[in-house]
Amino acid sequence: MRGAVLHAPGDVRIEQLPDPAIVEPTDAIVRLSATCVCGSDLWPYRGINEVTEPTPIGHEYCGVVEEVGPGVSSVRPGQFVIGSFIASDNTCPHCRAGYQSACAHKVGMTGAQAELLRVPHADGTLVATPDDPDPELLPSLLTLSDVMGTGWFAAVAAGVRPGMTVAVVGDGAVGLLGVLSARRMGAERIIAMSRHEPRQKLATEFGATDVVPERGDDAVARIHDLTDGVGADAVLECVGTGEAMTQAIRSTRAGGGVGFVGVPHGVSIPGGRLFATMVRLHGGPAPVRRFLPDLIDATLRGEIDPGRVFDLDLPLDEVAEGYRAMDERRAIKAYLRP
Amino acid sequence: MRGAVLHAPGDVRIEQLPDPAIVEPTDAIVRLSATCVCGSDLWPYRGINEVTEPTPIGHEYCGVVEEVGPGVSSVRPGQFVIGSFIASDNTCPHCRAGYQSACAHKVGMTGAQAELLRVPHADGTLVATPDDPDPELLPSLLTLSDVMGTGWFAAVAAGVRPGMTVAVVGDGAVGLLGVLSARRMGAERIIAMSRHEPRQKLATEFGATDVVPERGDDAVARIHDLTDGVGADAVLECVGTGEAMTQAIRSTRAGGGVGFVGVPHGVSIPGGRLFATMVRLHGGPAPVRRFLPDLIDATLRGEIDPGRVFDLDLPLDEVAEGYRAMDERRAIKAYLRP
Repeated sequence: MRGAVLHAPGDVRIEQLPDPAIVEPTDAIVRLSATCVCGSDLWPYRGINEVTEPTPIGHEYCGVVEEVGPGVSSVRPGQFVIGSFIASDNTCPHCRAGYQSACAHKVGMTGAQAELLRVPHADGTLVATPDDPDPELLPSLLTLSDVMGTGWFAAVAAGVRPGMTVAVVGDGAVGLLGVLSARRMGAERIIAMSRHEPRQKLATEFGATDVVPERGDDAVARIHDLTDGVGADAVLECVGTGEAMTQAIRSTRAGGGVGFVGVPHGVSIPGGRLFATMVRLHGGPAPVRRFLPDLIDATLRGEIDPGRVFDLDLPLDEVAEGYRAMDERRAIKAYLRP
Repeated sequence: MRGAVLHAPGDVRIEQLPDPAIVEPTDAIVRLSATCVCGSDLWPYRGINEVTEPTPIGHEYCGVVEEVGPGVSSVRPGQFVIGSFIASDNTCPHCRAGYQSACAHKVGMTGAQAELLRVPHADGTLVATPDDPDPELLPSLLTLSDVMGTGWFAAVAAGVRPGMTVAVVGDGAVGLLGVLSARRMGAERIIAMSRHEPRQKLATEFGATDVVPERGDDAVARIHDLTDGVGADAVLECVGTGEAMTQAIRSTRAGGGVGFVGVPHGVSIPGGRLFATMVRLHGGPAPVRRFLPDLIDATLRGEIDPGRVFDLDLPLDEVAEGYRAMDERRAIKAYLRP
């Protein structure tokens, strides 16, 4: 099969790779209908995470089950499935508590920018749609594998409730889908922090009521201006840098929540500041498996259209252009057709 | 009047001070029935917080209203009152959200180890008891001013719910009352982390089901042993050091909460660890004003007896011995009779 391999920072290539095969009885092999490039793929692509050897890359996927191991009972060949970017057994205490991304037997997925993918813990990881979905829904269904579930978890972790004022730090695909999530959860006012016109536009279409282009101290001051000096009830931190985390904490009211889903890079949170601000903090790798059934239903019913974050559509063979376009911020998110 | 003044690390004295007077129309003057030494008083006493000039000290109090300013309407001279260690107007958006310790007009109390105390925002800060309380209840009522409300908030912030397994880091008065709070909230299993026999005993009497004397890595391992490798559902961090915070975070299950109420000293929380563990974090100066009405009721009905944390009872004139005994860990908490 063909699959993307990251060789070094800036060097991602499509290569001929061995077809994946069933290894454990609980595995499934999925023929991918769609995959894409994640913001977190840019960390190694930019050399911020070290690349020590050529590595198959990609972790967002949906497609049709090709084969299952003898221990798989909940999905069967021919079914269209979506799975989380973290494989989980969905039976351990963490999974049962809704934290499948902390599964006692979790396996981080990789190699999904390819034609075929081996999915461990297939029963716990994959959710099948009732029927073959309309091809037009593929981009939206694909987002449920990570980016939409991650934006949703940011809002859940921040404690978004109907009527709240919510601010979103980060205008990447996760931040934009955080806006969509907050809107669906009934937030009354949603402040998107973005300085890029096409992203501001999409944020507004997803439900943002205000756009703040400032950053750092100026952004915090604007949020306080917009909230009568109180701060936002909930803030979604969708970047992963120390600056973004500081901006998020300082924008939140006492007792309000910051939901953080950007993979932290060099983030250190001063305990004294967290104590003084009384902000609640919750985040991590999103347990998207928890949200998959509801978000699949909402997508199939046409109630959400998260696939609109894809503004670049490429055949898998042009994966390198997808990385370049996202790295240069020419694209929000690149959709790949295997 | 007589009042305690901290002159330098290790040097606290009772001196003759001017009687406090009404300054703002919203002030009240309270003649104190009881006061005490707080664990946080030990930070400057130990020189960890700088002492730049002689400073009246103490912030826990209850007593009888002596005089009120013309703007005070909810309490009147002669009433027995308890107030928070942070004065608040109880009308601003933070107060209305139950975060009175973040009041837009908050005033940190000091000088309460004395005969008389000026309380700003008297209407927002003080809560009167229905009648003059039984003198035997004075120690328990006094704790509601800070230490009991702080232990209670630790449990609230950690998200303690009926049936949970809760661990408490810190066996000072706050930690011990965190145990009592978790028990009252219906926790099924309460693990007190303590290596001091008298404190272990009181923790057990307050409702601890297990005692873990280990610290650091060993303590974390014990908590995981006791919870089938999962971690505690909620952890109360009642110390304020980096070690205690690390121990708390590592003892908590994914999606579980750490409530932290120890004033952080040199605490820095690695964003990567918080992300990886998926632990919720919430803390700060306890909004004890939120809890005062219910905790006063529970104390007057005899349902809680938080005053048992006082194991040293001194006349105010012997305040220096109270500090020494707590500093040397000979006493859990020193009660002072003005």
